[in-house]
Formats: sequence, structure tokens, C-alpha cells
Amino acid sequence: MSDFSAIGQPKPIIDGKAKVIGGAQYLPDMQLPGMLHARFVPSSYAHANIRSIDASEALAVPGVAAVLTHEDLPNIVPSSRNKLLLARGRVIFVGQPVALVLASTEAAAADGAERVMVDYEPLPTAMSIDEAMAEGAPLVWPTGVPKGSEDAGAHGADVDEDDDDEDDDFKVGTNVAKEGFYKRGDVEAGFAEADVIIEHTYTSPMVHQSSLETQGVIAQPDPLTDGMAIWSSTQDPFGVRKEVASALGLPESLVRSKGAVIGGGFGAKFPLYEPLIALVADKLGRPVKLVLTRSEELLATNPAPPLRVHLKIGAKSDGTLLAIQAQIYLDGGCYPANMAKFVGFQIGSYYPTPNLDIYAVDVVTFKQSTGAYRAPGAPTAFFAIDTALDEMAEKLGLDPLEVKLKNAARPGDLMADDDVWPGMGMRETLEALQAHPVWQNREQARAKGRGVGIAVGGWMGGTSPAAAACTIDRDGMVSINVGAMDISGSTTGFTLIAAEVLGVTPDKIRIVPSDTAVSPFATGTGGSKMTYTSGVAVAKAAEEVRQQVLAIAAEEFEAAVEDMEIVDGRVRVKGLPTKSISLGKIANEGMKFGGDHPTIFAHGRAVVTDQSPAFSAQMVEVEVDDETGEVKVLRLITAQDVGRAINPMAIEGQITGGATQGLGWALYEEMVYGDDGQLLTGSFMDYALPDTLQAAPEMETILLEIPSEHGPFGARGVGEPPVTPTAAAVANAIAHATGVRMTDIPMTAPDIYRALKARNGHNSHT
Amino acid sequence: MSDFSAIGQPKPIIDGKAKVIGGAQYLPDMQLPGMLHARFVPSSYAHANIRSIDASEALAVPGVAAVLTHEDLPNIVPSSRNKLLLARGRVIFVGQPVALVLASTEAAAADGAERVMVDYEPLPTAMSIDEAMAEGAPLVWPTGVPKGSEDAGAHGADVDEDDDDEDDDFKVGTNVAKEGFYKRGDVEAGFAEADVIIEHTYTSPMVHQSSLETQGVIAQPDPLTDGMAIWSSTQDPFGVRKEVASALGLPESLVRSKGAVIGGGFGAKFPLYEPLIALVADKLGRPVKLVLTRSEELLATNPAPPLRVHLKIGAKSDGTLLAIQAQIYLDGGCYPANMAKFVGFQIGSYYPTPNLDIYAVDVVTFKQSTGAYRAPGAPTAFFAIDTALDEMAEKLGLDPLEVKLKNAARPGDLMADDDVWPGMGMRETLEALQAHPVWQNREQARAKGRGVGIAVGGWMGGTSPAAAACTIDRDGMVSINVGAMDISGSTTGFTLIAAEVLGVTPDKIRIVPSDTAVSPFATGTGGSKMTYTSGVAVAKAAEEVRQQVLAIAAEEFEAAVEDMEIVDGRVRVKGLPTKSISLGKIANEGMKFGGDHPTIFAHGRAVVTDQSPAFSAQMVEVEVDDETGEVKVLRLITAQDVGRAINPMAIEGQITGGATQGLGWALYEEMVYGDDGQLLTGSFMDYALPDTLQAAPEMETILLEIPSEHGPFGARGVGEPPVTPTAAAVANAIAHATGVRMTDIPMTAPDIYRALKARNGHNSHT
Repeated sequence: MSDFSAIGQPKPIIDGKAKVIGGAQYLPDMQLPGMLHARFVPSSYAHANIRSIDASEALAVPGVAAVLTHEDLPNIVPSSRNKLLLARGRVIFVGQPVALVLASTEAAAADGAERVMVDYEPLPTAMSIDEAMAEGAPLVWPTGVPKGSEDAGAHGADVDEDDDDEDDDFKVGTNVAKEGFYKRGDVEAGFAEADVIIEHTYTSPMVHQSSLETQGVIAQPDPLTDGMAIWSSTQDPFGVRKEVASALGLPESLVRSKGAVIGGGFGAKFPLYEPLIALVADKLGRPVKLVLTRSEELLATNPAPPLRVHLKIGAKSDGTLLAIQAQIYLDGGCYPANMAKFVGFQIGSYYPTPNLDIYAVDVVTFKQSTGAYRAPGAPTAFFAIDTALDEMAEKLGLDPLEVKLKNAARPGDLMADDDVWPGMGMRETLEALQAHPVWQNREQARAKGRGVGIAVGGWMGGTSPAAAACTIDRDGMVSINVGAMDISGSTTGFTLIAAEVLGVTPDKIRIVPSDTAVSPFATGTGGSKMTYTSGVAVAKAAEEVRQQVLAIAAEEFEAAVEDMEIVDGRVRVKGLPTKSISLGKIANEGMKFGGDHPTIFAHGRAVVTDQSPAFSAQMVEVEVDDETGEVKVLRLITAQDVGRAINPMAIEGQITGGATQGLGWALYEEMVYGDDGQLLTGSFMDYALPDTLQAAPEMETILLEIPSEHGPFGARGVGEPPVTPTAAAVANAIAHATGVRMTDIPMTAPDIYRALKARNGHNSHT
Repeated sequence: MSDFSAIGQPKPIIDGKAKVIGGAQYLPDMQLPGMLHARFVPSSYAHANIRSIDASEALAVPGVAAVLTHEDLPNIVPSSRNKLLLARGRVIFVGQPVALVLASTEAAAADGAERVMVDYEPLPTAMSIDEAMAEGAPLVWPTGVPKGSEDAGAHGADVDEDDDDEDDDFKVGTNVAKEGFYKRGDVEAGFAEADVIIEHTYTSPMVHQSSLETQGVIAQPDPLTDGMAIWSSTQDPFGVRKEVASALGLPESLVRSKGAVIGGGFGAKFPLYEPLIALVADKLGRPVKLVLTRSEELLATNPAPPLRVHLKIGAKSDGTLLAIQAQIYLDGGCYPANMAKFVGFQIGSYYPTPNLDIYAVDVVTFKQSTGAYRAPGAPTAFFAIDTALDEMAEKLGLDPLEVKLKNAARPGDLMADDDVWPGMGMRETLEALQAHPVWQNREQARAKGRGVGIAVGGWMGGTSPAAAACTIDRDGMVSINVGAMDISGSTTGFTLIAAEVLGVTPDKIRIVPSDTAVSPFATGTGGSKMTYTSGVAVAKAAEEVRQQVLAIAAEEFEAAVEDMEIVDGRVRVKGLPTKSISLGKIANEGMKFGGDHPTIFAHGRAVVTDQSPAFSAQMVEVEVDDETGEVKVLRLITAQDVGRAINPMAIEGQITGGATQGLGWALYEEMVYGDDGQLLTGSFMDYALPDTLQAAPEMETILLEIPSEHGPFGARGVGEPPVTPTAAAVANAIAHATGVRMTDIPMTAPDIYRALKARNGHNSHT
């Protein structure tokens, strides 16, 4: 680390101060002249035909300019959620936008929306996985299940992508969207050979990403070009451009998409309402703004899908895993989430076994569609496999950490799909915790009525092409134009990478905000891959600029390029600090009328096609209240392999945030639908996010650096891993403290209380 | 030409329609929330001390928010005109901004400005070159003449640039800013050997560029970064950034400068009021807009400087030039224009002679500063040298065109500074006219009372570094980000260049508007050099993208890169048109999550250090009204060497426009100052621009293509040459029709009438 001057130093997020003092302009802050505010009329039913819509009262509200229904919009095939514009005769989830009210103020739009009368004919629903798969179930898509989301793919999940022929993929007469398998060896033979078998059904609910800032979009038509400018709270400005261009029938170049400063994404903010609002702005010829209320955000966006995992594992008495069998059921809501198979991949890959039999199925139900949420599916996958291994160790009287180390994948082992694990640090993260005093002293903790649990999770990481441009101003400021949307500090990381390559201080680097009209393309920010992929492009662009600078300086100094160096923003002959030229002066050479040197300007292109899996092992110490079932998490220690810590401060922030969300998964968060399809947790009064009183354990972070071959300076993705093992670690800690094995998350106080009662009942019987 | 698919085809200017239908947003169309409108209080005196400024009445005008004087601004050394902010105790020209009134409307600002009372103590002035150079003349700069403008350098004039040490250059105790010399051989010996000598004093007045749109600027402070956004009607967004950053004491990266759609520049729109308005916006913390009225535009900008050229040439009886002697006096107004020597360079270079003696001097006077106007100084230089040669031929009874051909510079000849002429087509342009029927039939024209005159002019052309970026969208649209401000069609030319290189149709190319925050650097648009320099960078970026596309396609086709070709926007194996991939599809390969190919994105850098002089020969046929002296120009034929006609339609537009401005120089335009320093031609009622009734001869354009070694596809600069020979050609035509030799431009009807009367009187005496 001491070899580096910029990377590896803790650096506060560049726009942190602006965000804290209220200076950052988020989407809701933006106002455009002549702008209309939109509010949608949400469906009251999970499944119903629409007999009629009466907008007359709404139109009488002062300030209401228009009430639009599907009749005002083009009849676009709703092949994915962002193309489900306004309901076309039938609704398929509670909260689905049926009509859109446009008004000169938000208040008038809300008043108008309340006065739109919709006459529904209710239809039977299928809300659960079992109902949806039952014979004769009402069909969400009678004419065929659409292909649905690729968001999980965006995060690095292994989604089968059929190139551009969506229509081949529609399944008719069923709510089953997709099935998948992994098979190896003979699980029955494995179980037969096993000394111990653990078998449970694990479940996880619909969980909402719950960004501080809700979804929002502004669309402004350009009457001159018939093009459209879009600002949105998005992780994916170029994806927004693509979807909006497709909806409007425009070439992408006529859609200018910018990501506003974002108040949290976590996988939810891929294109959603942008095409609808763009179509409306186009129709009305005025700028239109939609910012979701918190209830709309909970009712009609794309939270994490409910999952049910039936898992059976068998092992020898020494803890050697012999077989894994799993059936995974995923409820995608009204569009397929296409993630079930990847959940199976994770369950079948992290602890390799000779005998594997995994079946995964994605179903659709009459609920809002689901999407990506930080390491999609992984918290559930690790909750299942890692608590099962923990329980197995307990049954065998073995140290659970030793059992996990014994079975944990090594580079070169086979994954579920028979691909080979690349270099990675799964075992090292476990070993880092093994050495920790909290682990060493866990029995003392138990003696005090506490429990210490450990689990390991990980994420394969996304890959993508990337590009960046780099130039230097006359005053020595370096500009990097990279197109990547910053949702959690990637901009600050790029700053450090460019500073390191160029030999300048990070304050001399400026990152141009992503704007599809002027930035090189970048894929959406997701999959823990922006630093990993775009960081490579940034480093390449900066390196090329460095070479350009050295070439000019070498001419000025009449020296060889290879004898030049850049130190502290000045170029000099190596070892001759007395004579040097500032980068700004070199840049100025390329900015002169009649100058002799070309302008300093370079591009970097990259395509990182290999994943660099990143692992996060967590250890929690809990206290369980026997009287109430309430779990208090006292400590949470994360050991994570980050490959290379470009910005340790931002990484620690990511890890702390991910672990906190993991506590939400473990103990609190659950979106509950009634049998009639109504969302019962439609506000933060009902939906239990962890708050600082509940979930503020002492947090500790241990960064391991097992360099990736591919990321910049060896960096691996860091955003997703820390959310993946938390629920499993908490469950293992609860078991350590109480002997109770929980199999449903969230593990709420009432659930644990019931389980403790059952244990006591059971104990009293034996 | 048939080898090309895109270049060489006439292509209407891309934003032409938007401009015609009122869709283009010029700076005056821009409104920002909270914006204040500025109006300045102009000095009533050419030279005076300011005793006091009373703003009380102005501040009482409803809507007036502030009245600022120099006391509200930092005390910046007024080293060039754009740093002469508000008068600091003394005014040095009529119209100089003394105070600035800021109001919520333009009308309130104007009302306020009329009510600011300024108490002056008038001081003696020096308005003419002779007054300024006289012993004991009042000094414009008692503490030393500042360095002044580099605008002429921006246009490719050979200005000595002293690097960054402005202070060394101040001359104290004089109004003479700069002197220069060219000397070769022995002019006295040359004249002694001569059979004929022509000697005159030629003059040209202050001439205004008179863009349809006046100067304008909006500055918007960014309270978050303390930076500044600037939009202006400018030829030079990066120059604006530099000057504004310097005035505000900011790094350039905190100044975001964008050029608005421009309604004409012609050399006038280099940084002028941007620093002042940025300082005011910074002080008030609000956006501020200044759009000059037409009188302010005429009163306080930077028109072309008045010139006086004393020229003596001698030749043998066969027309061979033996000696040129010239003294050039240039009145720069209150700042040195630094152009006199380059006028001498032109006089001494185009018709090489063994004996040369040129003296040039730049003086300052109590007038508005002068600046660049399309081929700065050249109309006067050619007016002098080319009419003198014409007169000499007449005296010798020789064909003037033959005499010019005999003496015209050839590649390899020496220029005035003893540099060598590179490849160029001076002679070819003359030969093209020689073959023209109007020239062949000129004696028949004369028999009908008309006259045919010919002259040749040219421009050395600017050079500069340049850079561009290129990428391709998923729909096959190509984006070029080049930073060069488009004032006369360069964007359309870049489109054709990129289309040609990439093998797509021009409608598939989009040029990103110049924006210093996101565009690669470009020098200001001037010197007929944007296509010539930035065009090379565009071609390089496009070629690099082409190679990237071919590399991906070759992989897809499993073929060698060198066997691939792009035809009509599709890549294929050479000669196998049945199997091909669109550029968009190739680009999409670099835009996929988990994709295998890098993003298509490339930079091009260029530095064109060699000039490619371009020549324009013009022939005019005139009819002179004996009774009034009025000249009617019947035809104007231009033969111009454009190197390569990238866009013949735009070039013809440039040539027609340049020639029309040349007619303004020749016959109409003159800014007249009274002895008291008042501008007597302060509106278009008094300042005589050519109108369509006066100056709409039949225009004909002959494009010659003698390729430059340096420009893209051989292109040379085309903007400036067509204005250079017009005045000379008209004068020669008048002489051909009437026998009268005019030596002062404009050659107005009263002047010609007087000259005709003098000729008649003279004739009657002989």
C-alpha cells in the first residue's frame, strides 16, 4: 500500500459535503419552466377489469391540465415492467397506474388523482407461489408470460439472455415463467452415504430497497428536434436513454438522459417510469415531472422478490459435504424476476459437493413486479446454505467455522454450472474472523446468555464494457468523462485511480457528471462493478494522457520519454527535481493558436469479461430476550476481500451500509400482502426498516486485499457482498444463544418468541 | 471527387432550418430564473476624468436592483480590452462602460442607465494617427501601453507572442504601441532601375463586423462550487473560460463556458464583456444577462482598425517588380491591435521582389479598441498592392492580369520574412479568371461604359492543436465531440468528414455542441482554420472508431481486419454484400452487461503546425454613374483555391458572404468619429452596410482544389480569403471603366464623383 500515493488513502466522498449542507440538486429540487406535475391513479384491485374511467371531477380541480389514460398513449407491448404504461382494460396489481393526472402543482395533481373515478370488475387472484402454480389458477398473463426483467443480470447474476427475440420466450397458459436446473453426481447416493442430513424449508419475504429518495423523473420535449431530455433518479442513464428511445420510437441520440444526484439506488433505480413520463411529455409538449410518494414507492416499484427454498444437505461425520438438493421458488410479482436459477447457482457453488440437484422456478403473481436489490437473491441463498451448514456442524459437534472452511470453495473448484472458481478469498475472509477475539471467546459470550454466529456470503460481480476520456486544463485540473452513474462513491474512486496513474493529488481530478449526450457509454451502476470495469477505462485514459504529457515534456527537456516522471503534478527528468514543468503548462502547449503540440486528450476503453468474486464473512454477537423474543445485535464484524482498497473510507461506508441492510433482512423487513392483494405495509409506519436504535451494533470492518487480475490495481467489487451473509450470521448467532434454528426471515421478535416457546415445550417433553 | 461518398456533395448547413424557422435558441432567447438584465452607462467623452457618479435616481427606478461602478469590482490591471471592466476614474473612449445598471427587466435597466449622473472633467484627446503620434500628444496610457489584443494572431496573422510576460511589453510616454520592419535588398537601387514607379497613400477606415446578432453574455454563479457558468455569443468558448477564470481567480475547471447558437461572428466575438458580467454575477449571486443594443455594439466593441498605407513600387517595362517600399500606420483605438506588421507582411509577400523596405507601426487613440475582422488587415493590404500593380500595368500598357501572373508568388518563393511559400494556388486562381468570358470580353464591356477589374487576395490561415472524440450509439448514430464552436458551417463539414471516414451517410453523424465542461479543447473559431485543424482531429477519431468497429466485426465474421469494409453503415467482408452487420449492432456489443467487446469510443488529436495559404481571385464588372459617382457592381466572380471542397454549398455561402462584405469595404462602410471623439455613425441609419439592392451583383464561384498537405482530405481554410481582394477588384474595375484610381476606401459615390470631376478637369486641361 505504501507504494501508492492516492489510492488506499481514506478519502471522503467528493459530493458528501454538498449532500449534507443541502447544496446537491436532487431530482425533486429541479424545476423547469412550464412544467406539469404528474400523480398517478393507482389500481385498487390486484386483478380486475376496468369498466370505465371518469375524469370529469378531476378535470374540474383548479390547476389540473389533463387526465390521461391508456387511450392517450401508444399501444406498446408491455414486455417488461417499464413498458407497462397505464392499465389497458385490466389491472394486475394493487397500485398499478390506471390513469395519470397532470397539474400545475403537485397538490393539484394529488387532488385530481383522488377524484378520478374508476369502475372495476374484480377478478380472482393468485397471490402466493402455491396459488400461482395451482391447477386452474387465474393467469397474470393469459396471452403469455413476458420475458421480464434483466435487472438481476445487470448485477452480475447469471441470467440467460436470449438475444433480442423476446417473443419466443412467452409461455402461454401458466404463471410459471421459467425453470432451471443444476445437476451433478447422484444426490440420493450422497444422502445414503451421509452421517447427517439437514433439511428445511427456508423463506424470505418481499423486501423493499427503501432508498431515502423515492423514484423520480422529469421529461422535457425538444420541439425543435422532436427529441426528449430526461433527468431521473437513476442508476442507469444510458438504460433510460435506450428505453425512452424505444418507447418514443426515436434514435437514441435524440434522447438526452442525465442522472440527477441520487438519494440511494440499491438496484431499484433502473428504468421504470421514464418511458411513461417521456410519452406523456411528448404528448402534451411540456416538461412533466413525476416524483413518487413513499406509498407509491412501496406500492408500485420493484422490490426484492419473495423466495422459498427447500434445502437438503448431507455430510459425513467429519463435516465433509456429500450432497446438496434444493428446490427454489421465486415469486416475481407480475413480471418474471428471472433470478431463481441464480439463487440455485449460489446454493450449489459456494460449498462444492460431488452430488448436486437443484431445481429453480420463477413464477408470476398478482403483485407489483420485483427487481434487483443489492446482491439479488443472495441474502436468501446464504441464509439457507450457511445456516444449514452451521446446524450440521452443531449436530456433528464440530466447530461450524471449521466445517465451513473445510467445505468452502477453493480457486479451481467447480461451481454449480461446472465452471471453475477463479482466484478469490472466500476462505481468507473466514480465517480472518476465526482469529478474531469475539470468535475465540464465543463460549464465554454464550455463558453470559449471548450468542456468536458466523456466516460467509459473496457476490460473483458484474462485468461490462467501459470507456472513459481524459484531458487536462491549463491550470492542471484533470477532467475524466466516464459516463458511469455514481450511486455510492465510484466518482471518488475514479478520482483516486486517475490521481494515482497521473501522479497528481486527488483534488486535481474532476469527474464529469454522466450525461448520455456527451459522456462515453457506461452500463448501469449495479453488480458491484463500476470501479471494477469503468475504473479500468479511467486508468487507461489517464495512462494515455500521462504518456502524452511525458512525450511533450521529453521534447521540452530534450530527454527520452522513459527518463521522465510525474511527481506532485509536475513533470521532470527522473531524479532531477530542480527543473520541472507543471501539468497545466504542458496542457497549455496544446491549447495555443499556432501551437506545436497536439491537445492533451485521450480515451480509455475496457472490457472486463472475467468476474472477480468477492467475499464477505460476518460475525455477529447477539442477545436474545427470552421474554419477548427480541434480538439485540451487539457487534457486527465484517471481513471482506476487496481485492484492493481504492478508497478504504468509502468501502467501510459500503460495508457498514450493506450490513445494516442485512440486519433489516435478518430481523425486521417484510412487505405483507393480504389475500385480497392489498399491500398491508404501505408506509414506513408498517414497513419496519431498521432504525438507529434497533440496529446500531458496534461495527468493525476488516479489509482483505487478495488482488483480482482484472480490476484496477486489483480491486474487486465491494457494494453487494456485505449484505449477503448478515441474515445467516444473525440466525447462527441466535442458534448459538438459544439453540433455536430459525428458517424464515425476517426473524421477528414474535417468531423467535414462538420458537423459544416451542423449544421450551419440546425440552419439557424430553 | 467521385472517390468520395460524403464530402464534395453540397449539404445544407445542419442547423439552417432551425435558424430559419426560429427554433434555434440564440443567447437573447435564453432566460434563467432570477436573472438580472444589465445595461451599461456609456462614457460621453473620449477622454475625461470622472469626478463623481450619482446613482440615486437610477436606483429609484422600479425594477432596478443595483448600480455598480468600478468600486464594486476587483482592481484588475486592464491589460487587454476584456479586462477594462468599468471605468476607473478616467475614460478613454466614447461609449466606454462607466457604470452598470442591473434590473429585473431590460427596460428597467435601460431606464436606470439613463438616470445615472456622471460628472466628467473633459481632457484633451488624440483621435487620429497623426494626432496620436504628435509630440506632446495626450497619452491613452500614461503609465504604459498594454500589450493588447491577440485576436489577429487567432486568425493566423503573424503576431509576435511574448509568452505570458505582459508587463515587459508596456511602452511608457507614447501612443506608439509597436513597430515592425521587413527589409531585403536595396529599395533605392530597385527604384533607380525601375522604368515605372507607382506611389500612393492608401487608406481604409474603421469598419464594423456588424453581425446580425450583437454581443451577448449570461453568467450564472454556482453557489455550491463558487464556480461560474457562462453562455455567450462567442467564437471562442474556451477563450471565454480562460478569461473568466482569470478575472474571477478560479481554476478553469470551475468555469463552464458554452457558446450559444451564434448570429455571426466575423472575428468580433472573442472574449469581451464575459469577464465583466461574470464578476457582476459573482458579486450579486444571481444570473446576469447583457445583450448589447445595436448602438452599444457600434460604440463599444472591437471593429476593424483604420489603416494608412504609404506604398511605392517600381518595375521594369516588362512588368517585373523590382522594389516595394511601404509605411503602414494602424490606429488600434484604445488598445494596440498588433496588426500593422502583418499588413506589411502581406504587402511584401504576395508579389515577391528582391528589394523590400517595410515599416509598420501600431498606435493607440481615444477610440474604442479594434480587433479582428475576417482576414484582419488583408482587404487594405490587397487594396494597396493589387491596385498599385494594376495601375503599373496600365501605365506600361500591359495586361494587368498578365503582370500579376508574372509577379505572383510561386511555391518556394520568399515571403517578406524570408520564409518560403509552401504549396498554394495563387496563380491558379488568377488563371481561372483569365479564362473566364467576362475577362476575355472586358474591352467590349468597357465599350459599353462598364469596367472589369481583377484582383487576388489570400490568407495564410491559422494553425492550432485540436482534439475530438467519437462514439457510436446503439442505433448507429455516430457522435463527434470536438469542442470547436460553429460559426459558419464547420459542424456540417465535420459531419461530412466523419461520414466519409466511417462509410455512413451524413445524417448518421451528430456533432455535440461545444461545452468546455465536456468537450475536448478547441481554439477559438477564427483564422479559417476549424475544418483545417479540428477537421483533422475529427477524421482521426472517426478513423480510430472505424478500426475498433472493424476489429469487432472481424471477430464476429472470423475474418481478418484488413478484409473488412464499411459500406452504407454496415460492416461486411469485402465484396460479400449479402452478409453484413450494422454499425449500431457492433456498437451494441460494447454496451452490454457482461459483454465481450469494449465500448466503441475513440479520441483523435491533431496539431497542424504548417499553414496552407488559400487564395481568392475576384473579378468584378461595374457600371459607374458619371452624374452621381455611384458604382453598380453587375457581376462578381470568385475563383478560390479551397484545397478540397468538403461541403461546396457551405463554401459557396462563405464566398458569397465574404465577397458581399468585401463590397461593403469597397464601397460603403465607414465608422466616422468627430474631432471631439463622438461616433457619428452610431446606428444603421448612419453606418452604411451594403443592402440587397445596392450590393447584389450576379455572383459566380469557381472552386479550385489544389490539395493542402495538412488539412483533412486536402482542405484549406475558406472563410477569410473571399473578403480580401474585393475592394481591390472593384477599384481596378472603376479604373477600367473611368480611368480614375481610387486610393481611399470606401469608394463612396461622392468620392468617385469628385474624382471624376477632377479627372474631367484634368482632362480638360490637357
